[in-house]
Amino acid sequence: MVPFSKICFVFGILLLVGSVRAQERKRAREYGLKIGILPTGKNNAITDVPGVKVGHTTLIQGENIRTGVTAIVPHAGNLFQEKVPAAVYVGNGFGKLAGSTQVQELGNLETPIVLTNTLSVANALNALVSYSLQLPGNEKVQSVNAVVGETNDGYLNDIRGRHITEAHAREAIQQAKEGPVAEGNVGAGTGTVCFGFKGGIGTASRQLKPEQGSYTVGVLVQTNFGGVLQINGVPMGEELKNYLNEQMQAKADGSCLIVVATDAPVEARNLERIAKRALLGLGKTGGIAANGSGDYVIAFSTHPNLRISHNSAEKTQTVTLLRNDDVTPLFLATIEATEEAILNSLFKAETLTGREQHRIPALPIEQTLKILKKHHALQP
Amino acid sequence: MVPFSKICFVFGILLLVGSVRAQERKRAREYGLKIGILPTGKNNAITDVPGVKVGHTTLIQGENIRTGVTAIVPHAGNLFQEKVPAAVYVGNGFGKLAGSTQVQELGNLETPIVLTNTLSVANALNALVSYSLQLPGNEKVQSVNAVVGETNDGYLNDIRGRHITEAHAREAIQQAKEGPVAEGNVGAGTGTVCFGFKGGIGTASRQLKPEQGSYTVGVLVQTNFGGVLQINGVPMGEELKNYLNEQMQAKADGSCLIVVATDAPVEARNLERIAKRALLGLGKTGGIAANGSGDYVIAFSTHPNLRISHNSAEKTQTVTLLRNDDVTPLFLATIEATEEAILNSLFKAETLTGREQHRIPALPIEQTLKILKKHHALQP
Amino acid sequence: MVPFSKICFVFGILLLVGSVRAQERKRAREYGLKIGILPTGKNNAITDVPGVKVGHTTLIQGENIRTGVTAIVPHAGNLFQEKVPAAVYVGNGFGKLAGSTQVQELGNLETPIVLTNTLSVANALNALVSYSLQLPGNEKVQSVNAVVGETNDGYLNDIRGRHITEAHAREAIQQAKEGPVAEGNVGAGTGTVCFGFKGGIGTASRQLKPEQGSYTVGVLVQTNFGGVLQINGVPMGEELKNYLNEQMQAKADGSCLIVVATDAPVEARNLERIAKRALLGLGKTGGIAANGSGDYVIAFSTHPNLRISHNSAEKTQTVTLLRNDDVTPLFLATIEATEEAILNSLFKAETLTGREQHRIPALPIEQTLKILKKHHALQP
Amino acid sequence: MVPFSKICFVFGILLLVGSVRAQERKRAREYGLKIGILPTGKNNAITDVPGVKVGHTTLIQGENIRTGVTAIVPHAGNLFQEKVPAAVYVGNGFGKLAGSTQVQELGNLETPIVLTNTLSVANALNALVSYSLQLPGNEKVQSVNAVVGETNDGYLNDIRGRHITEAHAREAIQQAKEGPVAEGNVGAGTGTVCFGFKGGIGTASRQLKPEQGSYTVGVLVQTNFGGVLQINGVPMGEELKNYLNEQMQAKADGSCLIVVATDAPVEARNLERIAKRALLGLGKTGGIAANGSGDYVIAFSTHPNLRISHNSAEKTQTVTLLRNDDVTPLFLATIEATEEAILNSLFKAETLTGREQHRIPALPIEQTLKILKKHHALQP
Repeated sequence: MVPFSKICFVFGILLLVGSVRAQERKRAREYGLKIGILPTGKNNAITDVPGVKVGHTTLIQGENIRTGVTAIVPHAGNLFQEKVPAAVYVGNGFGKLAGSTQVQELGNLETPIVLTNTLSVANALNALVSYSLQLPGNEKVQSVNAVVGETNDGYLNDIRGRHITEAHAREAIQQAKEGPVAEGNVGAGTGTVCFGFKGGIGTASRQLKPEQGSYTVGVLVQTNFGGVLQINGVPMGEELKNYLNEQMQAKADGSCLIVVATDAPVEARNLERIAKRALLGLGKTGGIAANGSGDYVIAFSTHPNLRISHNSAEKTQTVTLLRNDDVTPLFLATIEATEEAILNSLFKAETLTGREQHRIPALPIEQTLKILKKHHALQP
Repeated sequence: MVPFSKICFVFGILLLVGSVRAQERKRAREYGLKIGILPTGKNNAITDVPGVKVGHTTLIQGENIRTGVTAIVPHAGNLFQEKVPAAVYVGNGFGKLAGSTQVQELGNLETPIVLTNTLSVANALNALVSYSLQLPGNEKVQSVNAVVGETNDGYLNDIRGRHITEAHAREAIQQAKEGPVAEGNVGAGTGTVCFGFKGGIGTASRQLKPEQGSYTVGVLVQTNFGGVLQINGVPMGEELKNYLNEQMQAKADGSCLIVVATDAPVEARNLERIAKRALLGLGKTGGIAANGSGDYVIAFSTHPNLRISHNSAEKTQTVTLLRNDDVTPLFLATIEATEEAILNSLFKAETLTGREQHRIPALPIEQTLKILKKHHALQP
Repeated sequence: MVPFSKICFVFGILLLVGSVRAQERKRAREYGLKIGILPTGKNNAITDVPGVKVGHTTLIQGENIRTGVTAIVPHAGNLFQEKVPAAVYVGNGFGKLAGSTQVQELGNLETPIVLTNTLSVANALNALVSYSLQLPGNEKVQSVNAVVGETNDGYLNDIRGRHITEAHAREAIQQAKEGPVAEGNVGAGTGTVCFGFKGGIGTASRQLKPEQGSYTVGVLVQTNFGGVLQINGVPMGEELKNYLNEQMQAKADGSCLIVVATDAPVEARNLERIAKRALLGLGKTGGIAANGSGDYVIAFSTHPNLRISHNSAEKTQTVTLLRNDDVTPLFLATIEATEEAILNSLFKAETLTGREQHRIPALPIEQTLKILKKHHALQP
Repeated sequence: MVPFSKICFVFGILLLVGSVRAQERKRAREYGLKIGILPTGKNNAITDVPGVKVGHTTLIQGENIRTGVTAIVPHAGNLFQEKVPAAVYVGNGFGKLAGSTQVQELGNLETPIVLTNTLSVANALNALVSYSLQLPGNEKVQSVNAVVGETNDGYLNDIRGRHITEAHAREAIQQAKEGPVAEGNVGAGTGTVCFGFKGGIGTASRQLKPEQGSYTVGVLVQTNFGGVLQINGVPMGEELKNYLNEQMQAKADGSCLIVVATDAPVEARNLERIAKRALLGLGKTGGIAANGSGDYVIAFSTHPNLRISHNSAEKTQTVTLLRNDDVTPLFLATIEATEEAILNSLFKAETLTGREQHRIPALPIEQTLKILKKHHALQP
């Protein structure tokens, strides 16, 4: 038996090779695309929200395994003991998101968010439970609400083989780090398809101005859905003649998992409203939330004063919250960052061949830029 | 006392004059805009759904009254006795929609839908109740769930004066008719503002192909919201330098009431899913469903076999329903028709001066078309 | 024309007479019933929550008019300018509650709650809008989310006559006062029917102990529903042979409007959870939330530090909130107070004859007490 | 390695012994309790709904393992290929129910329902996925929405040890059978606690009369919650001096998973309404849906004409559905069967000692009956 760490080491090298090639593809903004009116954060990534970390485990093995895990960690501490305010919005519920009802009832999140493929939710769930039970300080914990999202990578990946193990999910959590986030064919986005092109992981962020509170909103997406692709408003699906067919199934079904992080002091009710806006960003890329799509948004706030202690001697907690009247900038930031994160997943993902020789082409960069230029949709 | 019919006659003439002038402005599609990939219905209006009728009462009086009523009538019969399947989706609930909970619980609609201004909901409600109680066959009816939507036209209209009477609302219902629908500064859209330009009533429709069931989806909107205007994907708000300010309030708040009609055989559950997609259409115009926005969608099906008799000797009803797997084309149709209906409201609405000399300019057609052309966003 | 104040004066006297007779009937607890394990507040009424006031307008005129209005006022100030956190729970949505979606979206209440009959919601709505527009300080207000609940008193009352005017609703608000609350055939409960007996207005409260925070929970109900009556667990409907028939319609339909007030520092999310528990109290009286029932709960917190200013120079608000872990006592208090409030409405309501000589008998006190005694359900 | 079947065989014998002893305790009705007004089905069990089967795996090993799995199988066929209409209602969402959002979105159920302990949801999920992938005819299936409910048996069971394996869950599904259902300390109820007494699995049913459609409603519960116990309306918690403490946590938290089956022709919308009523039954036993409670209801219809084929050549499906007006008897049946199922779990469960010598006493039968008799709450 080959221990897991060795396997990782081996495909880690493969991954490295892949990464080098992936770097040849740039992010949307590097090509001159400017989505919306708000400035981005430092890395234009969900990790621009201080403390948020992202980790990927990518599984590309043999001819048929093209899948992975992505973990989003809200803060560096013991999240079970210091929960964060959170909300879930179900855009279209054809999906297997685990943990949603407790987040909605209690308004908080007590584990990292793990994304993977549809049939591996259970193993990721077990990983999160094990991870939580084993954290120092959690020795007496008997109940863990693990949040696991998924999309279906079964076209490129041998999904029925359920190749994601608990160990893979643990790896993604443990390797989570701050700073730039790998995008495209990585982690939970390794085998996904978006608008008929290769999808994957994408991220983006927005930075509000001081008069709007100087808050940051970061978004990470796992794109595996369809519709009629629009890039910065340009009807790219039509131009490239690659969009849903008459029955609107072949290229419409699929899913999009969206994670929104912010450091704004917003509690569950306003986080749910923020989560809801992410769907508008998805719509602007041409997504239609088709019948077969599992479109979920999980939003959380990292604001330190809003953390919810698992145990407290106090019956009350004093919090300073953003008023309803001042959440609108966060809505716009969420819409813009979601749109750009989806585009980043497309720009960064490379052509991939997988299960049964299925091949999904990457978004053709050169042609795409030419069309964008024609439509004056690139910055000069 | 001047009887109401005379007043109507008088401003009816004024309205006619207004209408003539309004005809100088064309609908989006007449200028070469093509929104989406699906063909429109005959009139590109909600009335393309067979049996659906629309009526307006427009109140432009003196310097301060700029308001009105729009009624959408699902079928020509006694709607209370023969209800239609229906659903409501709350995009953002800063609004006073009446009747939503019963529609959601029972899955049906038993009155026409009436739209008006925020402070006139009660009078419109009374009008619908009176209308329903007085219909032949309803002599014993003691409970009516009237559906009234609203947006706030208080910038241009003396909304505190509550000038809409029961009679005005009755007029809108009684004058409802099939065929082309007046758009822009009419009915409930008389005094509304959209993206900093004059908004109003807009409508559009989509016609599915035989292999998709040949269904029609029609949408009517009352536009009074903001964000960063996009027309067919082109960043018009930025180009025209007219969009929300730093605080994102001045031009973001407001509301959008959306009515979706279809002849597809879909019951309440799938109608709610259809209703939800209308928000994606709103998002594509640059709407952000700001904190202060009342964004509601009411969707209903006119399919004759789905009508729900108020009284029935039978305990069961046999219905033929579209399967989940085949609703996706209706989703796309709803998104496209909503986007186009919103644009039609902007293209058709004229500059209006009202309360306290407030003036809201119409979307500048010439400049807009020039920008669209630059972005290759007009059909050749 | 007789001015309204005179009419009120006249039937006020009639009402006084009625009240005297009503005082012959006692509240449940005065007969030895003890519902649950928690102590009541001082008056065992919703007004035990400091600042909450209740007012009734009772309309008993001629042979056919048996209806009224009840107003619940959360605090003595300008409620529009100083809103209270609030939530709505829809137990069964066959009803016409106005204002629910904005309460749910924004998590607050900006008008008193007015209860009346089904077809008079519009007039009550107008009254609340007028009241709000005219309050000193609201001169510039252009949008009011009025909350009006209703049940259908059409069996005893000429509901189609719509005899409730704006003035009646204004009266109820203006006459609202602290202290004991009139119950039974008063206000919005004048013509209602509950479990086949005369229903009406009922109220009750619970007082938590210091170790539970010393909070008060008060409930007021408008009872007009059915099922199989249980009093303190005793199967009274069966014993009295008065309950729903085979078709379960004659005595099951109807509605129950429930208002829950508390001074505990709970925001909208936990208020919604509290509201949800009121249905359990209804269930314990034998209510089944039948298809035709409009069972709604509106809950609000009067805690002074949670008031939401309509305008604020600050973007944030600091609040001290009860933690999730400590809301359970409020749940139990709500269940108990709701059960007892419903019973109080039955114990206090008198036999009433109304429209078309319809007669609804009061709960027969003597017989009821005898049965309760047999079941050891009275305190010694 | 000992094969799993042998282990089962061994503890099956132990279980048998346990069963013999358990038979000394009778069901509520056998002691003379009559809950509500409707007659029961043949076995007064969820399996009275034709085709519904229930299976248990009970794990009582050593001193610390007291847990198990219960599976509810809606019909004998391939449930993935022939789904049943279904709905989920969240009474209080402090729980880890998997699969809820897809049931709510699509209105159907495609796997058996599996109940287990909180930390074993993932293994049960894997079992259901494996089971579904391996069913003949499912060779190409790539997406499975498995429904797993749970309550927390950590007081009596070494829950952190996660002793439930995929194999245990498979066993429960495979051993599911029609006819009488074992109750008390079996399956997912092996280690649960209810109102301070030993809880467990309980079931009951109601049979509607021909004029109500002759439908059957069956309920199965996994009871692990608290409050102030009432048995047939009698305040048993108070009489036995065993109920929640001042903080209302020690004996209030916990959860109740409720499964409702019916052969009535009701689709998702009305199934959700039915599911909602189960909470009223829980309330009648004194349950309060405490903050820490995961109270979920899953309802499904087995009506053969409502089955939803996974694939269909047809775009539409013709169904005969019960009208809204005639669902009320199903509501009452659900309330009554839920109340009785909970009581059955208490009457059948035996005193159990488990983890760390924790011991939970059974409901004391003799004393309970004496109190019930005093209150005239037993049939003569």
